[in-house]
Amino acid sequence: MAGTYFDHNATTPVDPRVRESMLPWIGDQFGNPSSIHAFGQAAREAVERAREQVATLLDASPAEIVFTATGTEANNAVIRGCSRIGCTSGHLVVSAMDHPSVAAVATDLESSGFDISWIAPDANGRIDPDRLAAAIKPDTSLVCLALANNIIGTIQPVEKVARFCRKAGVPILCDAVQAIGKIPVSVRDLDVDFLSLGAHKFYGPLGAAALWIRKGVELNPYLLGGSQERHRRAGTVNVPAIVGMGEAAELVQAELEARRAHLLSLRDRLETGLREIGDIVIHGEAVERLPNTTHAALKDIDAQSLLIRLDLAGFAVSAGSACSSGTVEPSPALLAMGVTPQEALSSLRISLGSGNTEDEVDRFLVVLAREVAALRQLGTRTSV
Amino acid sequence: MAGTYFDHNATTPVDPRVRESMLPWIGDQFGNPSSIHAFGQAAREAVERAREQVATLLDASPAEIVFTATGTEANNAVIRGCSRIGCTSGHLVVSAMDHPSVAAVATDLESSGFDISWIAPDANGRIDPDRLAAAIKPDTSLVCLALANNIIGTIQPVEKVARFCRKAGVPILCDAVQAIGKIPVSVRDLDVDFLSLGAHKFYGPLGAAALWIRKGVELNPYLLGGSQERHRRAGTVNVPAIVGMGEAAELVQAELEARRAHLLSLRDRLETGLREIGDIVIHGEAVERLPNTTHAALKDIDAQSLLIRLDLAGFAVSAGSACSSGTVEPSPALLAMGVTPQEALSSLRISLGSGNTEDEVDRFLVVLAREVAALRQLGTRTSV
Repeated sequence: MAGTYFDHNATTPVDPRVRESMLPWIGDQFGNPSSIHAFGQAAREAVERAREQVATLLDASPAEIVFTATGTEANNAVIRGCSRIGCTSGHLVVSAMDHPSVAAVATDLESSGFDISWIAPDANGRIDPDRLAAAIKPDTSLVCLALANNIIGTIQPVEKVARFCRKAGVPILCDAVQAIGKIPVSVRDLDVDFLSLGAHKFYGPLGAAALWIRKGVELNPYLLGGSQERHRRAGTVNVPAIVGMGEAAELVQAELEARRAHLLSLRDRLETGLREIGDIVIHGEAVERLPNTTHAALKDIDAQSLLIRLDLAGFAVSAGSACSSGTVEPSPALLAMGVTPQEALSSLRISLGSGNTEDEVDRFLVVLAREVAALRQLGTRTSV
Repeated sequence: MAGTYFDHNATTPVDPRVRESMLPWIGDQFGNPSSIHAFGQAAREAVERAREQVATLLDASPAEIVFTATGTEANNAVIRGCSRIGCTSGHLVVSAMDHPSVAAVATDLESSGFDISWIAPDANGRIDPDRLAAAIKPDTSLVCLALANNIIGTIQPVEKVARFCRKAGVPILCDAVQAIGKIPVSVRDLDVDFLSLGAHKFYGPLGAAALWIRKGVELNPYLLGGSQERHRRAGTVNVPAIVGMGEAAELVQAELEARRAHLLSLRDRLETGLREIGDIVIHGEAVERLPNTTHAALKDIDAQSLLIRLDLAGFAVSAGSACSSGTVEPSPALLAMGVTPQEALSSLRISLGSGNTEDEVDRFLVVLAREVAALRQLGTRTSV
């Protein structure tokens, strides 16, 4: 594919080493891990090795890992599982910065009678732990707080919130889909109850994701059928994708520090250049963010038009999360931060990846400056 | 992998042509189909082409196809979606020959207050359409009838049952996971409302499955989050697996007749040989079955022991469905047919595939005769 890819929060290319690990399993190796013959057992061993690799990355035990197809499925499974009892009533505390795969389930529960406390972030997209803690009630069945926001990249004080949850006896789901592969993540340090991750955000394949469930925590399975994943997730296990996820996890473990340093250096270069373009606000700048994510509002710019111009010039960026692309609605997370709809619709997300280079960033800045200038001039002319 | 594989109802190898179609998408091609830049749009086009290929195979419209991760997910989605209103009450009619991904959800609903009419099959595993129709009540929200059973291979009179459903105004889910690739399947001829299929049962990859939803039929989505699949299934779309599923569907379309003829000829050869071994009952023999499936009870044999001996001799067969392997419980479907637990636990499933040969069948029969004789002699000695 020609072009420079700056949309790694949407999906990442598969690392060639991950690809190599997967190839046998779409080739001569095959088998249903639930089968007890040699074909099945070889598949099961491959899956169990991947489970260990993922567990090691998270500082978890292999038995705590349940493989799912997507991060969305993992998040849905936890929220539905924790809100099942009662069926039409209950209380959840949900960060307004969480991903649609959390927010949409909470909204659905709200419409069927659940009480949802939506916790708004500050202007940097950061959730105040004390404010969240204050929303916990005696009947709260779950707290949802993503470790890193997908659009701004703001990193949340999950560890602190988890301490409040533990004290109140309320389980907490940490969506770590955007965090894994970009910052260190340890389920022991975070001390949460559920944590979700998706391989395709860290150079693993599409089709493999995981839900970590703290040992001893009970969760009704969301998908029912066969006895796969120790009765915690029915459906034939996706061997090649899981093998790839395991390999990708092992690579993160080995390379995280180098990747972070590379990303941070590129992002600093990018943001320095952005500021030179002028009339730009970088969201979440004042707080800890993912090392690869820049979300910037460009004054007097329609982000969709800019995105298309950049695409034609060979640069792939985003005007929001991929999950809601195609819509021109401003992101609810941005609105919750107090960003105006106009500013939200003039914002670009640039999410860098391990494969990006300084040269790509420099070329991008030249093109961006040109396109922004052209659009701003056009805007001025149009409004005359 | 060394050994002869006779367990194609559990999973199939990926066709080399399917593999070729997938490789670019775990290589240089990547992108989230929800992204509006060139990377995303190329991915979207690939997915839409696969949607057309799958729709063509089913005699359906592309817009009616929703990609899921597994057949289990598709079945769960329909049953949950149709039983949602009311939440703790309602009525479902479910074939006792259906897969655990249907039966387990129905059982779960039953435990939370739903009324489930389980329709028992006859001794051949066939559901009587009149008997099923008689169970439909004014408040029935769904009928579930798999087109072909996964263990015996019995083909069900779905078309006839669907006519009753249409008349009663009740939607019907047809699990066609085991049927696709083995017998012709047209959603127009069947005239059902929902139909599920999974790529890995017809030489496509793990991780891609689909739910066909008749145009005009409303179904609450099971997974909530992003707007993927036209708001019908949230979660990042698994591009490589879906591309492979499309290719596998196109190959079925082109080759189904040749595959069926090959399978039928091999199965006849196999079953002739089985009868020569003696003291064998072939289940479902009297009715229409899948061309690749033989399920046989071998008198005085413990199927698990036989399976392990066959595995050591290089032949992979099953003693039940892969979904419930590892358990020594007799299959509920077999029990519903009136098979005794003892007979169920002495039964083997041999499910042939396109790649199998006459020579493999002949070699298998020699080994099987030897192992059966050995086990029977052992059994006689033990009981003395």
